[in-house]
This record gives sequence, structure tokens and C-alpha cells, in this order.
Amino acid sequence: MTQTASPELLRQLVIANKILYDQGIVDAMGHISVRHDKDPERYIMSRHLAPALVGDADLVAFDLDSNPIVEIGKPYYSERFIHGEIYKAQPAVISVVHCHAPSLIPFGVTKSSLRPIYHMSGFLGAGVPVFDIRGTAGMTSMLVRTPSLGAALARSIGDKPMVLMRGHGATMVGGSIQQAVYRAIYAAMNASLQMQAQLMGEVEFLAQEEADLAAAQGDSTYHRHWALWEKRVRDLERM
Amino acid sequence: MTQTASPELLRQLVIANKILYDQGIVDAMGHISVRHDKDPERYIMSRHLAPALVGDADLVAFDLDSNPIVEIGKPYYSERFIHGEIYKAQPAVISVVHCHAPSLIPFGVTKSSLRPIYHMSGFLGAGVPVFDIRGTAGMTSMLVRTPSLGAALARSIGDKPMVLMRGHGATMVGGSIQQAVYRAIYAAMNASLQMQAQLMGEVEFLAQEEADLAAAQGDSTYHRHWALWEKRVRDLERM
Amino acid sequence: MTQTASPELLRQLVIANKILYDQGIVDAMGHISVRHDKDPERYIMSRHLAPALVGDADLVAFDLDSNPIVEIGKPYYSERFIHGEIYKAQPAVISVVHCHAPSLIPFGVTKSSLRPIYHMSGFLGAGVPVFDIRGTAGMTSMLVRTPSLGAALARSIGDKPMVLMRGHGATMVGGSIQQAVYRAIYAAMNASLQMQAQLMGEVEFLAQEEADLAAAQGDSTYHRHWALWEKRVRDLERM
Amino acid sequence: MTQTASPELLRQLVIANKILYDQGIVDAMGHISVRHDKDPERYIMSRHLAPALVGDADLVAFDLDSNPIVEIGKPYYSERFIHGEIYKAQPAVISVVHCHAPSLIPFGVTKSSLRPIYHMSGFLGAGVPVFDIRGTAGMTSMLVRTPSLGAALARSIGDKPMVLMRGHGATMVGGSIQQAVYRAIYAAMNASLQMQAQLMGEVEFLAQEEADLAAAQGDSTYHRHWALWEKRVRDLERM
Repeated sequence: MTQTASPELLRQLVIANKILYDQGIVDAMGHISVRHDKDPERYIMSRHLAPALVGDADLVAFDLDSNPIVEIGKPYYSERFIHGEIYKAQPAVISVVHCHAPSLIPFGVTKSSLRPIYHMSGFLGAGVPVFDIRGTAGMTSMLVRTPSLGAALARSIGDKPMVLMRGHGATMVGGSIQQAVYRAIYAAMNASLQMQAQLMGEVEFLAQEEADLAAAQGDSTYHRHWALWEKRVRDLERM
Repeated sequence: MTQTASPELLRQLVIANKILYDQGIVDAMGHISVRHDKDPERYIMSRHLAPALVGDADLVAFDLDSNPIVEIGKPYYSERFIHGEIYKAQPAVISVVHCHAPSLIPFGVTKSSLRPIYHMSGFLGAGVPVFDIRGTAGMTSMLVRTPSLGAALARSIGDKPMVLMRGHGATMVGGSIQQAVYRAIYAAMNASLQMQAQLMGEVEFLAQEEADLAAAQGDSTYHRHWALWEKRVRDLERM
Repeated sequence: MTQTASPELLRQLVIANKILYDQGIVDAMGHISVRHDKDPERYIMSRHLAPALVGDADLVAFDLDSNPIVEIGKPYYSERFIHGEIYKAQPAVISVVHCHAPSLIPFGVTKSSLRPIYHMSGFLGAGVPVFDIRGTAGMTSMLVRTPSLGAALARSIGDKPMVLMRGHGATMVGGSIQQAVYRAIYAAMNASLQMQAQLMGEVEFLAQEEADLAAAQGDSTYHRHWALWEKRVRDLERM
Repeated sequence: MTQTASPELLRQLVIANKILYDQGIVDAMGHISVRHDKDPERYIMSRHLAPALVGDADLVAFDLDSNPIVEIGKPYYSERFIHGEIYKAQPAVISVVHCHAPSLIPFGVTKSSLRPIYHMSGFLGAGVPVFDIRGTAGMTSMLVRTPSLGAALARSIGDKPMVLMRGHGATMVGGSIQQAVYRAIYAAMNASLQMQAQLMGEVEFLAQEEADLAAAQGDSTYHRHWALWEKRVRDLERM
């Protein structure tokens, strides 16, 4: 029998939903999940709801086939297979974000590769694959609505921090909620800055070793970002 | 004798006015209407007022020639013929939005066609005509201020979800208030993303079949967007 | 002996200061004035203060040489000569705005002429001169700090609605506070849209006659904008 | 024995932290310091914290080798050597800002030089060096985490108002907190405007003498900006 997930983990997941909205990464669409801290064969995510509106009571536990552990009789995200199949394929992944952050969309539909323009997005140095759903399923609504589409996306991201999805959005992973949220926010910021820089001329990106060193360094700073992001969300709720 | 429109429909129309402002689709200009749910030969729209300021008491019923059913002795939108003539020509249309959303303006005055860059705007796959008022009326103030100009615009949009208006703005329609509002918001988002992507290089738009499938899929999700948009408007009113 | 200016005019001038800030036309710099409604040889403007902070007690009356009628012992805007010299040269001008609105700056330092991209900015059809202070005074701090520089700027704007100032900003005039504020806001919006459209390709601007008709039409709608702008300012003050 | 720093100086430093956040110059990263007003061999800066969250109790005094005068048992900014080494090398510098302001990043990684596009940023006329950390230390995490890297950055900025840092951000200095904050805000604004203007065509920047005169003139106006910026911060705290 599985134990209940840590209350602190659930609390962070609710806050993360609101942070992603406040920081412009998700609107009504997009979602974030976390692997269950007592049972790695489960993950937790909101029922079908805009992230900004998610509360404690909306969280649902799923197995890695993305079936709810307990049926709640309300709709789930149709793209929850993105989460389940990545957790299945990548044991080190603890959190997954799926979003349509505006600045990322152009990088999924043009030849420009997303590359690290500064140390804040050194994690992009690992390379950013682009998933084209046509390669797996031909003509679709673009949504990852089945286990096999989720598995195809999981193969595309492999062990990398993120994947762009052509004509759709992006998916980021992390070894913690904080890392996944950080990667979503700074991938979007990098996209915006890279777009501008490319219009200005040839861009000098971080060297591979610089990107790796910056990414490792950045891993020690999530608490500083999170303290600010969480305060913003709490202030907004109080208003 | 016509029955009173559903209170819930009127409530949604007031909220829709404020959502369009909050989401940056209208400023003091622009308007949204809904077809009367008890009498398809009528539609309901605010009197001449900035959408953000519209309340229950400002709603007026018009016949499809855009004459008020009951004269209220206050000015009406001079471009209400956009609404009346589209309702007349397209029985399936339940709601009409007219706006000058900033990101759409450049697409009405350049050779770039607005096309679906991602699944959220699959409805653009139906094609986006550009209405040039000169073709109908020569030199004007650009406003659709007469029944015949409204009828010309209705012919231009035909059975499509939206029409761009050269040097003016755009008009979107929907089978519900929610659909018309959704189309206005994501047409504007698509325009912003497409503009950026085109500056970066050749853009891979959704294939026709992908756009159609995505549009059909999107039709089932308006309640999720609306819940967020309505909450924002209510929070702003409370502050 | 001059009568006191109308309290309603003074109230509108205070609100206009805050609207220009709320709409992003001014930051701490920039100013708006109005011609005295009882004495056309005077104008009213705030003392040296960020527009957002201006209250009733900060308003000062100046003669058209930009000397204060009553010395208040606090600093005045060093560029008040922009206002005085335009009122002197153009009897029909009732209000003057000077600003550094971000989107206008690139149009003062490149070869692109600001032209009306849509009906909301039809007033640009009158033509937008660019004032280069070097032509009058050689090397300066760019500021219009003397009567003769003010007179040179007044000659540059002539009877037109606005003038761009190279490496500095812009000045707009109007037959009312509402018209001057409207022109500032939609000149800045036009600049932003035109910049984007020009990057996309050849732009079809309004024809001259369309621009003239649209400008005349727009003159009847200031109250609708103003109601919204004033409400925003009042809501912000209440928070 | 060193006296306590002026309470007013400490108060301004706390406010400056929040202004830099409110004006979009820093997010959770970035920092501002001030030289101790009773002991030029010391400077004051927050402990390791997002600037928006800094309060009086978070301020720490450092010697110019960036060792805390009194060990507080909490982490410090790892890049505090930027501050200490500039204070050591430039006796006239009273305040230092380090930031990753978005609009500045593209200018550190492309061939475009940041130049004064209008009078508000005349201080850029002094020239803006670009610091490339590779020239000093080869492959790094891009962070200025040692005294020798700080000294290299200090040599790069020399006696100029600011330095861009490739793939990282920028550092600005000032003869007061107000001047350093002003330079950060208007350097970022200039970058945004210059980027847009360059896409539109050839840009006419301020002449050298104009830039110098504008910078000198601007030095007398910090109080007007600061009054607005401080009010915004206070209003936000009250909400």
C-alpha cells in the first residue's frame, strides 16, 4: 500500500502551478506534475483545470500508465501521457512541465535551434530536440493524447532537460519541481533574447564547456528564485 | 412578442466585454454582441461605451437591421452594422467580436497571410480574408457605419471564423460567446508569434488537416479558458 | 485682472498627467499643459514633478514667455518653452504634450516617416515633421531650454498635430486636453505597429483622404477613451 | 573603529533594491551596493537574497576584499567581488549595480555597440566596453566569483559608467545610488530602443558632444525619477 505523498511536496506543486501562470509560462493550458515521493511508480498532477486555479483538492495521483489511482469522476488533462511516459522512461526525472510559452513557439517551427545565450540558460547546452508528431502519427490535432504518443515524446526528449514540440509548445523536466520550473522560465527567457539577438546579427552563444559549468552552478540557486516567485504568488492571492 | 433573453447569457456578455479588455483585445474601442437566445432575429450589445465599463444596464437589443428594439436615447456603436449584417447572413453565428487588437493590424496592411502557427489557433486554417473597404465604398473614414458596408463585410467573412480589415482591425465570429472570445484572443496571439517567427526565417505552419483537427479539438476546451478569464475579471473588480 | 481657470479644466489637467503615465507615454519625464480658459495669454502646467505625482496644488500659471504669473519658489520644467512658444504661435492650440514615449524614439533617428497605419491614427496623415535641434543651436544637451529653442520647435510643428524630436522625443498639440492626450497615445501605438509591419514587408498606409476622414471621425470619440482612461487612474489611486 | 553608516543611506539602499526589481532590471538575480559613507574602505550590500525581498536586517558591510566585517553565518552573493574590486580601483564610485536586464543581453553577444539613441542615455557616450571572461579565465561558469575575476572586470570598466559582460549581463556604477540606478534603467531602455531602431535602418545616434552635454544635464534630475520610483515601490508594499 502506498503512503500519502509529503504535504510539503503537494504544497509546492500547487504553488508551482501558480508560479508558471504568474511568470507567463502557461495560460489556461499547460500543466506540471511531480513524481510521488513515496512511490516512484506514481505521479501527482491537477485534474483538468487552468494552472492558476489549482488548489490542494484538485491534485490527483496517477500510475505511470496515466490512469488515476482513485477515479474522481472529473476530467483529467488529455495530455497526461506526456508526464507518465517520461517518468517511465527516465527514472531520474522528478518533475515535468508542459507549456505553450509564447517565445518558444517560433523555435519549434523555424530552423533556429534554441541555444544558451547566457549563463542563466546554460542547461540548453545539452541540446534541445524538436519533436514532430507527424513522424509518429501523421495527421493529428497535435496533442499527445495516447500512451504511444507520450512514449514517442519521451524518446525524443531522452535524458535532456527539454524538448520543443512543432506547432504546439514544449516540455521540460527536472530533478525537482524547482528545477523544472526554473528550466521552463529561463528557456522562455532565452528564446525571447535569442530571437532579438539573431535579428541584430551573428550571435556568440556560450561555449559547450561554459554552458555545462553554468548549468551546474545554476543548480545551487533555485531557492533564491523560488523565494521570489512564491512571494509574488502569495501577494497576488492576498490582494 | 419576444421573451427576455436568458439572464445567464446577458451575464456572460457583460463578462465577455471585460475579458476582451483584460486580455488586450479591445481598448476603449471594439465591441462584442450575442444573438438573442429566444429570438434569432435580434442581437444584444452594449450601448456606445468602452467594453471595460459595460454593465447589465448598458445592454440593448437590436433587430438585424441594427435598429434598437426600444430606443434608449443614448448613442449606439456606429459600427453595429458589422454585427447585424453578419447575423443576417450567417444563421449559425451566435456571437460577433469587432476589435483593433494591436498584433492583428500589421497583417491587414502587409502581404503576410495570417496562418495557424500552432494548435491553439487551428481555426485560422479555414483561411483569413482581408476586407478592403475601398472595394465597396472608395474613400471613407474606414468605419463600417452603414447597412451596406456591414453587408459587404459579411460577404467578405462568409462562413469563416474571422476577417481582417485593412487599416482598421478585425472581426471574429463564433457559435457561442466563448468561441468568439477564444478566437479573438488566439488570433491575436497567433499574429504576434507569426510575426516573430517570420523574422527568424521560413515558418512551418500547421498542415491543413492538422489545423482542422486542432480546431475541432479546441472546441471542447473553452470552459477551461473561460474559468480563468472570468476569475481574472472578477478579481480585478474586487480590488 | 485674470479670472481663475475653471476648476473642471484644472481637474482634467491633473487627471491627464496621470493618464499619460498610466498609458506609458511619460515616465518621470514629460509634461502636459493647457491654455488658460479665461486668458489665452496664459497656460497652466505642473511645477517640476513626475506627471504621476502631480496634484491640484502643483499647478502653476505661466505667461506665454513661460514666466510664472506668481513665483512659487520651486523649480519649473526647464523645457516649458515648448509649451509657451507653441501657444504663442498657434492660437488654436489648447493643450500641449511633450514626451519620450519609447516607440516614437526610433522614428526620430531613422529615415522611416511616421504614417497612419490605421484609422485610430488618421491625424498622422497631416505629416509628422522631425525637429533637429542642431539646425537651430548646434551642439546642445538636446533640451528645449530657451525661448528661442521653443520658437524653433514651434516653427517646426507649424499647424500640424505633432513633431518628432531627433534623439529626444516628441511633442503633440490638441484643441483640447482630450485631443492632445489621444494623439500622444495613438501616435505611440501607431509607431509600435508601423515598426512591426515594416519588418514584415511593404506597408499599405491609409490613403490621404482616408486619413483625413478618419481623423475627423475620431474627433467625436474622445469622451469614450477618456472615460476608460480616467477610470483606470481612479482605480489605481484607490488601491 | 568605523562608525555606523547613515540610516538614510541604508534606507535608500533597501529602496534601490526594490526599484531595480520593479523597473525590470533585476529578477531574483542581480545586486546593488553602496560605499560606506563613513569608511571608504567598506561597502554595504544585502546578503544572498532576491533584491525584491531585501530588508534593513539583510544588509551586510564588507571590506574591499569582499570579506564581511562581521560574519553573519548566512550566504553572501558569490559575485560580490564585482563590487569590492570596482570600489578598490575607482575611488569616485559610490554605488555599483550588477544585473542581467533582458534588453542588454543581446548587446553583449553580438557586434552591435550600445550607443546613446537619445538624451536620457547620454552617459553611454563615454563608451561601453564588453568584458569577456574567457580573456581572463578561459572556460568558467561565467560568474565573477573570485577577487582576480573582479579585478579583471574592474580593469574592463575602468572609469566608464558601465560594462557589458558577454553571455552574462552588465555592471553599472555611479557617484550615488541614484546615479547607478538611473544608469541601469536607462541603459536597458536605450538597448531596447536601439535594437528596434537598428532593425528599421541606419540610426543617427547622439553626437559625442551632445551625449556629453545630455549626460551632464541628466545628472541634475535624479531626484525627479527617484520620487516616482520610490512611490511605486511604497505603493506595492502597501497593497
